[in-house]
Amino acid sequence: MRSEILQLTEKIIFQVNERMQISRQIGKIKNELNMEVADEKVEQDIRKSILKLSKQIGMDTKFCGRLLNTLLTESVRLQQNQNSPELSPQTHLGIFMKAKQLEAAGKKIIHMEVGEPDYPPPKSVKKALITAYDNGHYHYTETKGIPKLCQAIAKKVGNSITEDQVIVTLGGRFAVFSAFASLLKPGDEVISIEPAWPAYKECAEFIGAKTNILKTTLEQRWNPDIKNLQDMINGTTKMIIINYPNNPTGKILGEKNLEEIVALARENDLFLLSDEVYSHYAFSHFKSIAEYNYEKSIVVSSFSKSYAMTGFRVGYGIANKSIIAKMVKFQATALTCVAEPMQYSALAALEANSNSIQNKRIMKRRLDLICKRLRNMSFTFVEPDGAMYVYPRLKKGVDSDISLVEKLLDLGIALAPGSGFGESYRGFIRISACQPAYLLEKGLDVLELAVS
Amino acid sequence: MRSEILQLTEKIIFQVNERMQISRQIGKIKNELNMEVADEKVEQDIRKSILKLSKQIGMDTKFCGRLLNTLLTESVRLQQNQNSPELSPQTHLGIFMKAKQLEAAGKKIIHMEVGEPDYPPPKSVKKALITAYDNGHYHYTETKGIPKLCQAIAKKVGNSITEDQVIVTLGGRFAVFSAFASLLKPGDEVISIEPAWPAYKECAEFIGAKTNILKTTLEQRWNPDIKNLQDMINGTTKMIIINYPNNPTGKILGEKNLEEIVALARENDLFLLSDEVYSHYAFSHFKSIAEYNYEKSIVVSSFSKSYAMTGFRVGYGIANKSIIAKMVKFQATALTCVAEPMQYSALAALEANSNSIQNKRIMKRRLDLICKRLRNMSFTFVEPDGAMYVYPRLKKGVDSDISLVEKLLDLGIALAPGSGFGESYRGFIRISACQPAYLLEKGLDVLELAVS
Repeated sequence: MRSEILQLTEKIIFQVNERMQISRQIGKIKNELNMEVADEKVEQDIRKSILKLSKQIGMDTKFCGRLLNTLLTESVRLQQNQNSPELSPQTHLGIFMKAKQLEAAGKKIIHMEVGEPDYPPPKSVKKALITAYDNGHYHYTETKGIPKLCQAIAKKVGNSITEDQVIVTLGGRFAVFSAFASLLKPGDEVISIEPAWPAYKECAEFIGAKTNILKTTLEQRWNPDIKNLQDMINGTTKMIIINYPNNPTGKILGEKNLEEIVALARENDLFLLSDEVYSHYAFSHFKSIAEYNYEKSIVVSSFSKSYAMTGFRVGYGIANKSIIAKMVKFQATALTCVAEPMQYSALAALEANSNSIQNKRIMKRRLDLICKRLRNMSFTFVEPDGAMYVYPRLKKGVDSDISLVEKLLDLGIALAPGSGFGESYRGFIRISACQPAYLLEKGLDVLELAVS
Repeated sequence: MRSEILQLTEKIIFQVNERMQISRQIGKIKNELNMEVADEKVEQDIRKSILKLSKQIGMDTKFCGRLLNTLLTESVRLQQNQNSPELSPQTHLGIFMKAKQLEAAGKKIIHMEVGEPDYPPPKSVKKALITAYDNGHYHYTETKGIPKLCQAIAKKVGNSITEDQVIVTLGGRFAVFSAFASLLKPGDEVISIEPAWPAYKECAEFIGAKTNILKTTLEQRWNPDIKNLQDMINGTTKMIIINYPNNPTGKILGEKNLEEIVALARENDLFLLSDEVYSHYAFSHFKSIAEYNYEKSIVVSSFSKSYAMTGFRVGYGIANKSIIAKMVKFQATALTCVAEPMQYSALAALEANSNSIQNKRIMKRRLDLICKRLRNMSFTFVEPDGAMYVYPRLKKGVDSDISLVEKLLDLGIALAPGSGFGESYRGFIRISACQPAYLLEKGLDVLELAVS
């Protein structure tokens, strides 16, 4: 039997090699015709017919799917090797890192690129930090977070959420990452609505999941087309990602649309990840996905924006117990737990609720100021319903977002290029309101000069 | 060409299915004969002959290796399914979580299961924490860590390591995880020397990499057999993992063996990940892998053990610039950066160097105490050269490690089962010296009664 296995393995390898040679030829032809390498439609067709076959012959379809993805990924890699490598777009984080380097070299920069509030955390946080230290709270904690913090978050979220439906994560980003890592497999598909925070795509890519993009436009006031969304769902779709109030557009989705999305997720048994990191900065009615009581939803939030605690790196996820258990297992594998003094600081912030209302007022005033100035410069944009950004379209004739952003960085103003939130948004920039009014005015003066 | 591809894919799937059916039959026979499922020798033979074939037919051997591992792993899984599902071993972390639950319910537990020092961080850490807060150091930082901390770590490590060869990570665990995530692909193989910290296997498994185990024995005084190590290396091997001073055995490898391992890594172009988290607790001569100046080495360390700062979650990795760049990219994707107040605390600890020498003395005294007691109880063990643990063999006739550990937990003493560090070590337990002497004595009294 062993020699039989070896012979069969050799046969398999021969055929895989043959398959790869044909792939390479297809790659050459695509290259000559200037066609894109990855062809979604073709991959889907192969996947469907092979998975059907595996069912017919009684083979484990999960294993078959993994094997197939190994083959498909290698095909794409072989074909790409023949093209020139494409540059990845610059994101707000890339600009931030550049700005930090310039500052280290002595340059003054006004930061209108990152979503990092300039005001301090609630006053009680400092005391909590010292008390945590004095009480020896600098040890390993439960991976899912200290019970007190989980309880306080559950209470804050309401909707009869219980402590065991909460995981404390390393910021909102790791909540997204760990949801993807524990719920998705290579080859799975997720649907993301663009423009979007680049993290969704980056995290999915790491897992080997494929991101399908539903584009929205300024003309549609950033409303997703639900019919299109429905058409995008197929057998390998596993998750829809939504983010309202939206980064970068500030959009809050109408309740009817939200309900339709929940219904689509339910009908197709999809995970629904709702990034609600900006929910404290909602200037019109906002409804959390937690209110729909959908068993496959994951709400992501964080202390970074609401309490101006970006550098504490504390976020959280809300989901049903079995999803939380998976995320906990993954978080234990990757990093054991969130730093205990940071968890106690977050707890103090939650208890000092008052701050977040004040922060919201500050943010609204600043966004109004930015909008007023942008209107005077005749930019086109939708006034934000929430969050901390304005996402205007550049006037025609201006260079690409990236060249403008680089020019402005030289002039001491850091802004985020629109294309960091989706390839199709090279004509946009994102302006963050995380600076005091007088600095925003100064930054907008420079922008006005640069685009006039 | 497209239909050709589809037909070939179908053929491949048919043959893979046939291969799996034979595998299942072999599994049945092995089961009847009570043989172990995973047969390293047979796997090695198949691997060698298939990789040779792939070279002959001009196929990418890396891809071929990944594909082969997908097949071999599935074979092992199929064969295992026919045996009774084996319980996954409990790890020290599992016992710790159980102990925490018991404590929450009011029970008193002596923690001799986790590697978490009971003494405090250096005094200057508290002041640094407050100053960091007062200076507004609670924002996003460079993903690779604040420059001052990277510089201080580089200086501390010496061996002309520069700042750009350092990444500050979310504890030592995330340094391991991010090295794996950024350097390994599904199907790649890593070699781990057991008994070992379970994190290596857990992280590799998440990536989809295969862990090949080089077992060491108490009889060989936990020395790895370098000839065996050499034989284990094949075309898909990507990394060797070493950990000295060792968790759980306390072993420090002789310099000759260390040199041989570096030479093997060099000859075979392998990554060499050296977890040196316990290097501050070396009671005999210890040489860091950083001293070998090997371009594919990654040294992992942390502030958790040396400075008793487990709950701050700050660790680091040392490697060449291109490896660090990959790890930084991954860390940016997963979690942006380490909490800024925690980074400043770590910086203060580094500058208050004195503590670590004192901590080392305390640890040595405690380990001596444990060894003395274990000798009186006629346990067999090798006296640790470093780290914070003793790893004795249970006397024959005692139940498995897990039943003993559970019995002791009922009696208020938490110990780590030996099998958490490798399936073959059910006859061992790990005793951690992270409690004051009087509590260790108390715990050992209970152990003595339980095993006598």
